Amino acid sequence: MPVSHTKTKSTTSSDTPENGSNKRIFTGIKPSGSPHIGNYLSAIKPCIDLQTQYDTFIFIPDLHALTTVRNAEEMRTNVIDVALDLLALGLDPQKATFFRQSDLPEHSELSWILSCITPFGVMERAHAWKDSLANHLKDPTVGLFTYPVLMAADILLYQSDLVPVGKDQKQHVEIARDIAIKFNGLFGETFKLPTEMTPPEVATIIGTDGQHKMSKSYNNTLQLFADSATLKRQIMGIPTDSTPLESPKNPDTDAVFKLYSYLATPAELANLRDRYLAGGFGYGDAKKLLLAKFEEYFGPAREKRIELANDLGYLEDILKEGAGKARITAQKTLATVKKAVGLVF
Amino acid sequence: MPVSHTKTKSTTSSDTPENGSNKRIFTGIKPSGSPHIGNYLSAIKPCIDLQTQYDTFIFIPDLHALTTVRNAEEMRTNVIDVALDLLALGLDPQKATFFRQSDLPEHSELSWILSCITPFGVMERAHAWKDSLANHLKDPTVGLFTYPVLMAADILLYQSDLVPVGKDQKQHVEIARDIAIKFNGLFGETFKLPTEMTPPEVATIIGTDGQHKMSKSYNNTLQLFADSATLKRQIMGIPTDSTPLESPKNPDTDAVFKLYSYLATPAELANLRDRYLAGGFGYGDAKKLLLAKFEEYFGPAREKRIELANDLGYLEDILKEGAGKARITAQKTLATVKKAVGLVF
Repeated sequence: MPVSHTKTKSTTSSDTPENGSNKRIFTGIKPSGSPHIGNYLSAIKPCIDLQTQYDTFIFIPDLHALTTVRNAEEMRTNVIDVALDLLALGLDPQKATFFRQSDLPEHSELSWILSCITPFGVMERAHAWKDSLANHLKDPTVGLFTYPVLMAADILLYQSDLVPVGKDQKQHVEIARDIAIKFNGLFGETFKLPTEMTPPEVATIIGTDGQHKMSKSYNNTLQLFADSATLKRQIMGIPTDSTPLESPKNPDTDAVFKLYSYLATPAELANLRDRYLAGGFGYGDAKKLLLAKFEEYFGPAREKRIELANDLGYLEDILKEGAGKARITAQKTLATVKKAVGLVF
Repeated sequence: MPVSHTKTKSTTSSDTPENGSNKRIFTGIKPSGSPHIGNYLSAIKPCIDLQTQYDTFIFIPDLHALTTVRNAEEMRTNVIDVALDLLALGLDPQKATFFRQSDLPEHSELSWILSCITPFGVMERAHAWKDSLANHLKDPTVGLFTYPVLMAADILLYQSDLVPVGKDQKQHVEIARDIAIKFNGLFGETFKLPTEMTPPEVATIIGTDGQHKMSKSYNNTLQLFADSATLKRQIMGIPTDSTPLESPKNPDTDAVFKLYSYLATPAELANLRDRYLAGGFGYGDAKKLLLAKFEEYFGPAREKRIELANDLGYLEDILKEGAGKARITAQKTLATVKKAVGLVF
């Protein structure tokens, strides 16, 4: 369940994890539009859960987003939305160091320095770039080509131990590690070598059509922050089979049951299974249970989000404060780097 | 003649040129090792002279130097040397805004932002990159490939009107202008469009061998800051023809006369010409005159350089103060850019 956080400002230094773990984990959360249960269970929740286990750095990679977004309002809204989502869903800026990338010039500075030792060929062989070329991307930019260097800078700036990545991002951590090894070899031990961490496999979240993975492209999502009327319409519209009300029903082939299973406790789920199998329990009843469960699960987060959205100044304060915490490590690393390459007197 | 500057700190804002020109000129001075008369007359003096005619920004491009220098001590020494040379030879930090690039994160920050709208193909077609590939440069780096974007950031950050460039650098100003046009088109008027300024053609400076252009590669230089003994040896060793002492001599074929001509006043030069043509005046005498002239011309700069080199803290203060002046404009531009692309709340 999402935890609520107070408006108290954090005074925790980023160098002394309060959760006791001495492993630093670093991850970025890209804006994905209005998040749905699928996003939440497979990406957002695992990310937020890190804060209780590691010295966690979570950043909003807005400089990376510049490679695709060319509209100021879209950029601004994306960043605000992802920050609101994460905070509403339980990211605790007292536990994790939460910041936006562009608030720290150190990312761009280190990126340039690292680009001066990164072989051109390494970028040419990066999957994302090769895919862009293979897909005949119109007008590919320099930023799209070099962004693995910026990503290496992001990771290395915080002397990160672990970087949670999906399969498609694994190569980027390898590149960061290779750059770190090269830099350390040329200029002396400077960077900790980061390791990619493959998050535990999350079961596919089924969509409201009961057929496909939940995804915006199938238009089968349940959005976490949709208004109640939309949510009710979406849940009530989930297709079910034509088994009569009085007959027993198969929970294992029903989408409503499946969706309920993602949010319910084992006891609640066993109870619902019994009712399906007993008969005399309609799909309409099951949908009402799902709706109630959804409201129970995400209701507090929804309220929290509205509260936060009404005070963007406070949101900005949280991000600025996070940037301040991140800066302690970022400046320390950059100072060492500048000294190593001879950029200080 | 080099002018001496006092240790008084400047309070001039970079936005209000004290010399009355409203054209801003922007130029970088790369370290070139120990400068000789050829460097001085063709590059250093014309650069320093700008400070009396324009709102002049002169920077030491140390971030660019990272593409080739991979030794901290070499980098550090290069930067200190070029700063000492320029200040000793008359660069007046009260007139020009004089700073080192890496003191301003804004260069790297703007460079990343611009890279996100710069077509990859533009970099592929940059002369310097094509030359690197044609010359089978071992292990070309990402930084070498993208450095025209950093150069565009350098220029555009200061809303520069004019950029003095040699022929080989003309394309870089064109690239900066193209990037500015594209940015302004996508995000609204933000950057002034810079224009390249071809410096007036400077006559070739002959070397002490009397045959080739003065150049380290011919080992025929007169270094401005060489010690007196070295200088004396170099000047006394200039080859001359075997015309006897008492005979008239041809000033127009003699290297000593030529070298004297670079530093002498017209009256002094006419006087020496008369003595060559009259006879009874030996090459040894001419060399003594050249040595005296050299000492007269560069002596104060040499003393100034020794004085500055003995107080690197003061040198650092000058550069930090220059960075502070530059930052006024750099931050203003970057703030506008960040707002334009949506990186502010």
